[in-house]
Amino acid sequence: MRSTVGWMADGPSSTLRRGPLKRRDLRPDDIAVRVDYCGVCYSDLHAIGSRDGEGSTPLVPGHEFTGVVTETGSAVSGFAVGDPVAVGNIVDSCGECAMCRAGQENFCYDFPTLTYNGTDRQDGSVTQGGYSREYIVRDRFAYPLPSGLDPAAAAPLLCAGITVWEPLRALGVGPGTRLAVAGLGGLGHLAVKIAAALGAETTVISRTPDKAEDARRLGAHDLLVSTDPERMAAARDRFDVVIDTISAPHDLGPYLRLVAMDGTLSQVGYLGPVTIETVDLLVGRKKLSSAGSGGRPSTAAMLEFCGEHGITADIELLPSAQVNEALDRLQRNDVRYRFVLDLSDLD
Amino acid sequence: MRSTVGWMADGPSSTLRRGPLKRRDLRPDDIAVRVDYCGVCYSDLHAIGSRDGEGSTPLVPGHEFTGVVTETGSAVSGFAVGDPVAVGNIVDSCGECAMCRAGQENFCYDFPTLTYNGTDRQDGSVTQGGYSREYIVRDRFAYPLPSGLDPAAAAPLLCAGITVWEPLRALGVGPGTRLAVAGLGGLGHLAVKIAAALGAETTVISRTPDKAEDARRLGAHDLLVSTDPERMAAARDRFDVVIDTISAPHDLGPYLRLVAMDGTLSQVGYLGPVTIETVDLLVGRKKLSSAGSGGRPSTAAMLEFCGEHGITADIELLPSAQVNEALDRLQRNDVRYRFVLDLSDLD
Repeated sequence: MRSTVGWMADGPSSTLRRGPLKRRDLRPDDIAVRVDYCGVCYSDLHAIGSRDGEGSTPLVPGHEFTGVVTETGSAVSGFAVGDPVAVGNIVDSCGECAMCRAGQENFCYDFPTLTYNGTDRQDGSVTQGGYSREYIVRDRFAYPLPSGLDPAAAAPLLCAGITVWEPLRALGVGPGTRLAVAGLGGLGHLAVKIAAALGAETTVISRTPDKAEDARRLGAHDLLVSTDPERMAAARDRFDVVIDTISAPHDLGPYLRLVAMDGTLSQVGYLGPVTIETVDLLVGRKKLSSAGSGGRPSTAAMLEFCGEHGITADIELLPSAQVNEALDRLQRNDVRYRFVLDLSDLD
Repeated sequence: MRSTVGWMADGPSSTLRRGPLKRRDLRPDDIAVRVDYCGVCYSDLHAIGSRDGEGSTPLVPGHEFTGVVTETGSAVSGFAVGDPVAVGNIVDSCGECAMCRAGQENFCYDFPTLTYNGTDRQDGSVTQGGYSREYIVRDRFAYPLPSGLDPAAAAPLLCAGITVWEPLRALGVGPGTRLAVAGLGGLGHLAVKIAAALGAETTVISRTPDKAEDARRLGAHDLLVSTDPERMAAARDRFDVVIDTISAPHDLGPYLRLVAMDGTLSQVGYLGPVTIETVDLLVGRKKLSSAGSGGRPSTAAMLEFCGEHGITADIELLPSAQVNEALDRLQRNDVRYRFVLDLSDLD
């Protein structure tokens, strides 16, 4: 076993402590990654908050990180020591089911191995995430980081980025698409950047007008204030696609009513059970979909696209010792638009 | 005003009585229809059951009927006395909104005028439906009945037929489509017939295997028993489109899990509010849609298609005097697959 250091939760507390952790010795198809930057995802908060009890393996969150290869397993040919790499929220899958064969490892019938709080397919251990200085990952679940992208600002692409990329691509968003992005946070701001680069006519939907300037800077053409009933009514049936990135439980009805005939509301990020009035789908023959994460081919395609278009997240970079401050502020939505931890202070 | 006879509910009772009713004098664009056959739709039961009190206009249900033109208004050019015609659940719309201009009068922003329990756009009267011997309808909301179709068995096409036609066409169902139809009732059996004629590979999903023979006779290739967990699990992600025609409130989860990657579950008929686990949409990037009724162009196209393929409903034809028996039995799902009232006994 290898030794490293990370930030971990022992029980259902939201305060992480610095502590030692073990990593497995490299298997033939593993690479060792020195984690330099790890994004702070809303799921991390959720995982910490739903931690139920002491005694088990400490929870080390973090599933969107970038770093550098420090060692390669004997069978690894795609990476060399010194390569910049990125890792997302999936680190393994069965590789044999229809979904894996289709390159949708995120939907693996045998359930994909999550980057933290997952179960390693070979030794049964609980995976521990990227709020740590080293991560050992199977080579096929690491991605070359395109040159030219700031590795700190690129880290959130691996979860927030791919989560919005998948529905944007699956729904054919491109030139001529009238797109709305509801919620301008970690996911939403990347949806706007990517959609604008894809050529869509993009509108941000926000509860207040105070993000109008940001919206335009990110590439949006307009901002629609969701608390203004007149403007919401006037925007009825206006958008071919609405990407709903709002993380708190909310009524989908007002957003469905903005969707154009035969269009789609895509709810991204896990919202749990939702109740909808079927008449909101029926009138205008609308569709509801949901998205989260992505498979290996689309993750690679997303990174390539972001590399070509110079797209990264707007981040606030903090030394990892400030992880608890980051989590507290994220809980209050006090971030524009993603916290990224600099893990070099763990050395 | 003109006088006719119909079957009507005065209060929140499910028993209809025979009684006289008035019809408007013909406007220039009206036609008078002698109603010969009217289907008994599940919505009729719902409308009767939700009737709240005495004193108002009696409720005359019925919104899928066929008959013969007996008189035409001064400006009518598309119909002549003696023409066989069909009328569905919409008899007028604003004609000016984006939906009407797009030929989706069923989604009229000003709300379409329903065939019964609607409000006439000119005189404000409450519309009374096709459980009657005469109906006066604006010419553009009547459709020529294709020759060769039995007018009794064709009546249900005007509500049940168009309700399944719309999603089948909107979702591109045709040769190569792996389609499932959940629920083999009035809507479901027409979905199977139309889908088979469209060339889809069609499977019926039913709670029991006792409809297997019917399913094959209607054109289905297979029957999947929804109460058999092993077969349901084996059918996971199998269908490009699932048309869910089950009218009782039910969990959509098991049906969503049958939908293939990027496929759609279309819930037809009004189900009210539904709760879904977003993960059932997320995994496999699936879509949920809903459908009911249709616009004028697609209603005409559906009738033309059914005329070409000889498609009508499987019906049990009853004298209209047995309307209450029909409603009772429909309530118990004791019909294969649609009751149609023969209104000639009203003469």
